[in-house]
Amino acid sequence: MATDVRLKEELPAITDQLVETYTECSRLNHLAHEPLPNRDAVADIVADLFEVLYPGYGKRQNLHIGNIGYYVGSLVDSLHDKLTTQIARALRHELCHERDSAVSAPVPEPWESPSEDKPHTDCEKIAQPKAVELLRRLADVRKTLELDVEAAFRGDPAARSHHEIIFCYPGLEAITIYRVAHELYGLGVPFIPRMMTEFAHAKTGIDIHPGATIGPGFFIDHGTGVVIGETCHIGRGVKLYQGVTLGALSFTKDDDGGLLHGNYKRHPTLEDGVIVYANATILGGQTVVGTRAVVGSNVWLTESVPPDTTVVLEKPKLRLKGAKPNTEPLTYEI
Amino acid sequence: MATDVRLKEELPAITDQLVETYTECSRLNHLAHEPLPNRDAVADIVADLFEVLYPGYGKRQNLHIGNIGYYVGSLVDSLHDKLTTQIARALRHELCHERDSAVSAPVPEPWESPSEDKPHTDCEKIAQPKAVELLRRLADVRKTLELDVEAAFRGDPAARSHHEIIFCYPGLEAITIYRVAHELYGLGVPFIPRMMTEFAHAKTGIDIHPGATIGPGFFIDHGTGVVIGETCHIGRGVKLYQGVTLGALSFTKDDDGGLLHGNYKRHPTLEDGVIVYANATILGGQTVVGTRAVVGSNVWLTESVPPDTTVVLEKPKLRLKGAKPNTEPLTYEI
Amino acid sequence: MATDVRLKEELPAITDQLVETYTECSRLNHLAHEPLPNRDAVADIVADLFEVLYPGYGKRQNLHIGNIGYYVGSLVDSLHDKLTTQIARALRHELCHERDSAVSAPVPEPWESPSEDKPHTDCEKIAQPKAVELLRRLADVRKTLELDVEAAFRGDPAARSHHEIIFCYPGLEAITIYRVAHELYGLGVPFIPRMMTEFAHAKTGIDIHPGATIGPGFFIDHGTGVVIGETCHIGRGVKLYQGVTLGALSFTKDDDGGLLHGNYKRHPTLEDGVIVYANATILGGQTVVGTRAVVGSNVWLTESVPPDTTVVLEKPKLRLKGAKPNTEPLTYEI
Amino acid sequence: MATDVRLKEELPAITDQLVETYTECSRLNHLAHEPLPNRDAVADIVADLFEVLYPGYGKRQNLHIGNIGYYVGSLVDSLHDKLTTQIARALRHELCHERDSAVSAPVPEPWESPSEDKPHTDCEKIAQPKAVELLRRLADVRKTLELDVEAAFRGDPAARSHHEIIFCYPGLEAITIYRVAHELYGLGVPFIPRMMTEFAHAKTGIDIHPGATIGPGFFIDHGTGVVIGETCHIGRGVKLYQGVTLGALSFTKDDDGGLLHGNYKRHPTLEDGVIVYANATILGGQTVVGTRAVVGSNVWLTESVPPDTTVVLEKPKLRLKGAKPNTEPLTYEI
Amino acid sequence: MATDVRLKEELPAITDQLVETYTECSRLNHLAHEPLPNRDAVADIVADLFEVLYPGYGKRQNLHIGNIGYYVGSLVDSLHDKLTTQIARALRHELCHERDSAVSAPVPEPWESPSEDKPHTDCEKIAQPKAVELLRRLADVRKTLELDVEAAFRGDPAARSHHEIIFCYPGLEAITIYRVAHELYGLGVPFIPRMMTEFAHAKTGIDIHPGATIGPGFFIDHGTGVVIGETCHIGRGVKLYQGVTLGALSFTKDDDGGLLHGNYKRHPTLEDGVIVYANATILGGQTVVGTRAVVGSNVWLTESVPPDTTVVLEKPKLRLKGAKPNTEPLTYEI
Amino acid sequence: MATDVRLKEELPAITDQLVETYTECSRLNHLAHEPLPNRDAVADIVADLFEVLYPGYGKRQNLHIGNIGYYVGSLVDSLHDKLTTQIARALRHELCHERDSAVSAPVPEPWESPSEDKPHTDCEKIAQPKAVELLRRLADVRKTLELDVEAAFRGDPAARSHHEIIFCYPGLEAITIYRVAHELYGLGVPFIPRMMTEFAHAKTGIDIHPGATIGPGFFIDHGTGVVIGETCHIGRGVKLYQGVTLGALSFTKDDDGGLLHGNYKRHPTLEDGVIVYANATILGGQTVVGTRAVVGSNVWLTESVPPDTTVVLEKPKLRLKGAKPNTEPLTYEI
Repeated sequence: MATDVRLKEELPAITDQLVETYTECSRLNHLAHEPLPNRDAVADIVADLFEVLYPGYGKRQNLHIGNIGYYVGSLVDSLHDKLTTQIARALRHELCHERDSAVSAPVPEPWESPSEDKPHTDCEKIAQPKAVELLRRLADVRKTLELDVEAAFRGDPAARSHHEIIFCYPGLEAITIYRVAHELYGLGVPFIPRMMTEFAHAKTGIDIHPGATIGPGFFIDHGTGVVIGETCHIGRGVKLYQGVTLGALSFTKDDDGGLLHGNYKRHPTLEDGVIVYANATILGGQTVVGTRAVVGSNVWLTESVPPDTTVVLEKPKLRLKGAKPNTEPLTYEI
Repeated sequence: MATDVRLKEELPAITDQLVETYTECSRLNHLAHEPLPNRDAVADIVADLFEVLYPGYGKRQNLHIGNIGYYVGSLVDSLHDKLTTQIARALRHELCHERDSAVSAPVPEPWESPSEDKPHTDCEKIAQPKAVELLRRLADVRKTLELDVEAAFRGDPAARSHHEIIFCYPGLEAITIYRVAHELYGLGVPFIPRMMTEFAHAKTGIDIHPGATIGPGFFIDHGTGVVIGETCHIGRGVKLYQGVTLGALSFTKDDDGGLLHGNYKRHPTLEDGVIVYANATILGGQTVVGTRAVVGSNVWLTESVPPDTTVVLEKPKLRLKGAKPNTEPLTYEI
Repeated sequence: MATDVRLKEELPAITDQLVETYTECSRLNHLAHEPLPNRDAVADIVADLFEVLYPGYGKRQNLHIGNIGYYVGSLVDSLHDKLTTQIARALRHELCHERDSAVSAPVPEPWESPSEDKPHTDCEKIAQPKAVELLRRLADVRKTLELDVEAAFRGDPAARSHHEIIFCYPGLEAITIYRVAHELYGLGVPFIPRMMTEFAHAKTGIDIHPGATIGPGFFIDHGTGVVIGETCHIGRGVKLYQGVTLGALSFTKDDDGGLLHGNYKRHPTLEDGVIVYANATILGGQTVVGTRAVVGSNVWLTESVPPDTTVVLEKPKLRLKGAKPNTEPLTYEI
Repeated sequence: MATDVRLKEELPAITDQLVETYTECSRLNHLAHEPLPNRDAVADIVADLFEVLYPGYGKRQNLHIGNIGYYVGSLVDSLHDKLTTQIARALRHELCHERDSAVSAPVPEPWESPSEDKPHTDCEKIAQPKAVELLRRLADVRKTLELDVEAAFRGDPAARSHHEIIFCYPGLEAITIYRVAHELYGLGVPFIPRMMTEFAHAKTGIDIHPGATIGPGFFIDHGTGVVIGETCHIGRGVKLYQGVTLGALSFTKDDDGGLLHGNYKRHPTLEDGVIVYANATILGGQTVVGTRAVVGSNVWLTESVPPDTTVVLEKPKLRLKGAKPNTEPLTYEI
Repeated sequence: MATDVRLKEELPAITDQLVETYTECSRLNHLAHEPLPNRDAVADIVADLFEVLYPGYGKRQNLHIGNIGYYVGSLVDSLHDKLTTQIARALRHELCHERDSAVSAPVPEPWESPSEDKPHTDCEKIAQPKAVELLRRLADVRKTLELDVEAAFRGDPAARSHHEIIFCYPGLEAITIYRVAHELYGLGVPFIPRMMTEFAHAKTGIDIHPGATIGPGFFIDHGTGVVIGETCHIGRGVKLYQGVTLGALSFTKDDDGGLLHGNYKRHPTLEDGVIVYANATILGGQTVVGTRAVVGSNVWLTESVPPDTTVVLEKPKLRLKGAKPNTEPLTYEI
Repeated sequence: MATDVRLKEELPAITDQLVETYTECSRLNHLAHEPLPNRDAVADIVADLFEVLYPGYGKRQNLHIGNIGYYVGSLVDSLHDKLTTQIARALRHELCHERDSAVSAPVPEPWESPSEDKPHTDCEKIAQPKAVELLRRLADVRKTLELDVEAAFRGDPAARSHHEIIFCYPGLEAITIYRVAHELYGLGVPFIPRMMTEFAHAKTGIDIHPGATIGPGFFIDHGTGVVIGETCHIGRGVKLYQGVTLGALSFTKDDDGGLLHGNYKRHPTLEDGVIVYANATILGGQTVVGTRAVVGSNVWLTESVPPDTTVVLEKPKLRLKGAKPNTEPLTYEI
């Protein structure tokens, strides 16, 4: 490259300046700590779980009732190892973080050992039963997912078959990941449930917090922009469309001058059979949408709705302006 | 790993339990069936189609008028093979599915042959002409895309050049995939058109059903959250912004106690030159937005609009609350 | 494959027809031009920048204060080369494009040399100082990002730690990429800033134009569907939720019969400490949301708001319809 | 690139010239035929077989007696499919080849179908039992390999453990691949056995023809340059060193003016317990090295040797030349 | 990891010590020079050349006379670019090296520009005609290779078909690479011919110097250990077996106290139709093996042999030692 | 696939049969043990070592004296971690193996923990100083390699430059890997030195035991088939050609009825400045080839040679047979 050598000479100074910010702005670093859970490993775990939950739809083809036992047994065994390793990393990280926070620990001096053996060992011992318990629950997760698929088929007139739903519907993908992440969340596994749901969020645009409680037969159509908060309670047979927010009404809590971090109920409750149409927003921990209620598109709701009620926007008063508002010249005959 | 061997001993039982659910919840499996279309192969086909439709913008650089014929000829030839294979898989799957549905077939017994030879052969014979027809239509698709690019350039003041639009605009990416998927949809290819548009949906947040009918000069700006339903009719020179839903008004159809699966017109019609601004929602198969009409941001529309009309929300009545609603302490001087 | 040879014989004719469209619809090609910036290379640069900005969170683990200097020095050095190459490609492309536009150049004849040596060399000489300047600014970018992370922690009650925010929050990912892209934009680098923010857009659903001006302590929660236009001014300590549009009010400019391409202020200003809730839409270059104002969910705003004011939708007049609007049979007991 | 466009214009002519040679020198093409066995697929099969034959030494770690059944069951199942596919390709190719040879078929005209359905189906039906039979024999192959490993451990004083032999000894790798390839050869599978042993040849420099017959307890030390011909008979407990050739004495057959293609015995017989040292050459189908005989290094042998005999070169008459034959100046003190 | 931090602290000192050796032992570095040809790029070129020379045997399957033109045209075009780039790198490197050697240049000071523009440009201009000339000669190379394949089929009684030879014979692989490398060598391309033949050497154990001259109909059986020196002349229809060395008799040149670097004839001549059996060694630039002569296995030859002569080792005088020389206990019954 | 389901049903029985052999032939398994060193990780370490030893020749280009410190510092740091991990695995494996051998331990019962924590920790503590010591010695290794490169340049008239030797000569590649492996061998690291030299053996056909002692200025030309035994002593400035064996004379030790495993001197000594030509074989621990002696091609030597002596084969008595021994019809005019 025809580059100027004198400019390149500046790079060491730039490096030094950056390295200085690693002690100044230390919150952006993760130096001299135990390794975090590995993103690729967690993505790999999610892929393996799909193989177990929906055998025949994923990477491995030609599965049949005669070989499925081997394939699943092999996956379950390796999932045991992968889950144990990653859960142990997450637990160890949390331990360190709590310790750091407790004593507001500075960056450790270079002569200090960044890790001691004992927490290392303990974390794997705590992690393994959680990994096994998740695997134990997968059969039940499958039973719930069967109802989710059924609900999608009944709920979308464009669906041609159950196969299409499992293979193509981003809503089911997000729900599946949520259901697994929720089990890990319930088992007290830090970090990884959120990594999993953010993985789904990035792919589908559907952001379900792993802490939310969601009954079977749940269907999200299209889904982009859906947000479901940590303390939502969603009953059985609920259907959501794209852009629906089930959020906190946090800006009413202005007098304490700061946000409470924790699990108090901040997000709404949707009872069995509720339908919420596109881009509706339902906010607040005390807001309850009653059984079989329907919330229309674009509705903004901060209060409870009784069962068997339909809530829609008033027909909007539209301002109509006449005569050719769109005067961009079109490049083709109309 | 310092794991407990006794816990691992439970894994075979967990496997058995999971395998049991493969007969119980059989809708979630794809066992003892012909292979489905392959996701990676379809993604590969889409990538090749981009190379053909926008030569020089993709993987292969240094293309010029002297070598483009070889490159495209080679791609067309391999697209023929790849499309034929995947379309045949989709057709075969549909055949099996119809057969299964017809007789509500149980999981085949292990001693039954999961596939017979004849449908195997036939499907490739049906698939090939569809593959060739798609390739035949690509030249016309390019002519339409030229108008789409032109429309994007005219429609976005931030656009610097046609190159930037082809290279960076997610709206054009989604429209391109839709245009190809729509051709396959029209040729009666099951499954794959939807796989393609979901591929675009995952990447761009724009969800266009392959069944929708869309004229040339179509432009979607930003695009995240756009949903365009299966039976939409969209004219020439239409422009949409992010978050626009062109959906069904299905919750008015409550008396039949179930959704009709099929192709009756459920989604709106947008005539030539219509503009729909961000987060507007237009619903219903009878709703027609007339030529050159403009629908404002956040408008929720379930009735038709005459041509050359602008529809906006009434200026919202805002509740203004005084005095420092946001009391989070800021960490920096204001 | 059991395919019909006669059908395959048509492929050369199809190829010829496609190649013809490469001279007709020449806007869709990039033939006989200098290579564009490479998508994978730009993605690689973004990944390296994350390693430098958040060391220890990315690919390389086991970093500590003793080795971080080597690692970062090595990355800075290779970033210098990669950035110089890609910026030079972008500059060269723009030069060609301007030249082409100026003389409305046709596709060059095959016997014309598509590239000359002089612009080749010059572009790298112009590119290198821009690359070095970006690297020089990274330490300051880190200081700004520290405030962004802090703001996210204070702003989200569900956040457990700073680590979780850096590792899992799509909002921070989009902001980080924006902050780097914005520096390149300010340095007059064409094309690449937009490639970077579209990369973030595809992954997070958050679309921030690299030209926007955004103060420190910026937080976007959930984020899917957020759009921030090119000429926005956003102060310090601002918080946005999913689906917020800060856009142009372009359809008021109907009388000129075409859109002005350029940088006049088309998008709103948000002063320090503003909060905008989910799916709100704020439009127009003259619209100013004053210090510490709060804009409620779903609000559609085209006029300025004074400081310390809360703007919410009037409580919507809801139409309540009684008795079982949702009569889809549920598959489970309620 | 600063290249000359006029030179590039010649490329189409060069292409045409090459394409012409595809009809002239048609032996170097494989056009319009059924696909050959796939190299990568065969390499993949070999890798899977190593996982089955030496579990725990290969890709998959953390195997134990509790999960090995799943892992092997899963491998056996997928090996069944992979072997069936590749064996069918090999059989189909041979059928075509025989047909071609029979009628000295020219390159098929473009309008002729290159494949018909019937042979397609038949080949898989013939292939499957061969694949299953190979899998059935693997347990016995393992018993033989156990003796080979034992022989290596006894035969090499540098060997530290059985583990080292399995993990590091190229001789065992070549023998293992030979043993599997030999079974396929015996089952009448064309092409693939040779692909497998050439795979071993490329990696180890040991070239064992899959047709050779070799007893258990076989050990090759170092191995580079070893050649074992198609019709060799090697007894039990034989040991070879690098560079040993067990070849044909073909140049004695000069009067027929051409080589006989076929399986008549052209290569020597080594009875039980024979040792052959480095670079010895033993030639001829009638040459028999008797039980427990030892052939010394560099010996060239075309006649039989009785049992319990040691054959070494006569102490060579060396010409000694005095005084500093090597006068290259050394760069260091001696 | 449970590692000792104090030990890690030594790493910077170790790094400094290594960096010091980069100025001391500067011959082992390639710092501040133009980039060398890229190994992976050259391997890629070789793979593409195999696709052109043996279409249908390599990566791309389903080739037929209808699409082969596109495929080859596309390959030829990209080979033009790849070859030009790599040849230019090789030429530029040689220029620098010559310049360095001429003035015994020290490592350039950091403030000196390591490259100037002019040689950069020139090298590509010199490289391109060489690249095109190589492509131009490929049709002739194919005609020669047709004779090589024919010779292999006639020469090996174990060969089943021409297909097997092209697909499985390492000898043909090495000869093919040699034939291409030899053309480049003749065109004065430095470095790359040797990289290519070493690539073949690593894979096949056959080491043919690209400078050797070899007639058509050349066959190497098995091949491991074959060495063919730079100034060999090999006629038409020659056959070699494994371990044959055609080398220099360099140790007779002892009186000049150093080796002459250059191209004077150091290696033997083999006239048409010669056969050399396994592990024979033929040395010396004046040694000529006459037409149709045969050199037996293990023969060591430093003098010429007349045409139509067979040269074999005297039947070796073997020492036979009786009674159980091999007393290693065998683990199985004999 | 058109396969027979009944045949597939046999696969579980085949699996069971195989699993049975895992207890019978347990020497071929590595079940329920600590993981072995990882092949890919060791290959990766070797690649990193080449980057450190020959900077600028490998993967990373554009290195110069200004950035080399960062690059090498970063590599040294990660080599520390990788080496520590793999050496610990090797040590742990050896511990287990010794324990197993001592008590001839059966396969552990499923309820026994396969690993205990203490050895786990200890092995990393023993491994780390060995890893650091290797890194510490690399500067000296470089100084030795500088002499090896110099010797190659002086020893091969075909060598054009030092660059060509480092980039293309397999001999130097094998020697480099040997030099590193030898250091590890000397540090008492099990398993990994052999893995490294077998890695070189597979690629170059040169098999140097890591235990051999070899002085600086060592050159191997061509190299395929060279074998250098564990207890060789090779002085300074020695040159070997392809096919040279420096081996044991083990078959004279027949009276003990078994091979002694251990390190007693079994292989020859070559003093300073010795040259050994192609395919010579030198055997025996007592055999000493004196300073500056030359051993000719194909010589078979089991006794010592005085300094400054040349040993060549007696001019072989050749049997010449007249009249056209090679009567294969040639396909071309001679």
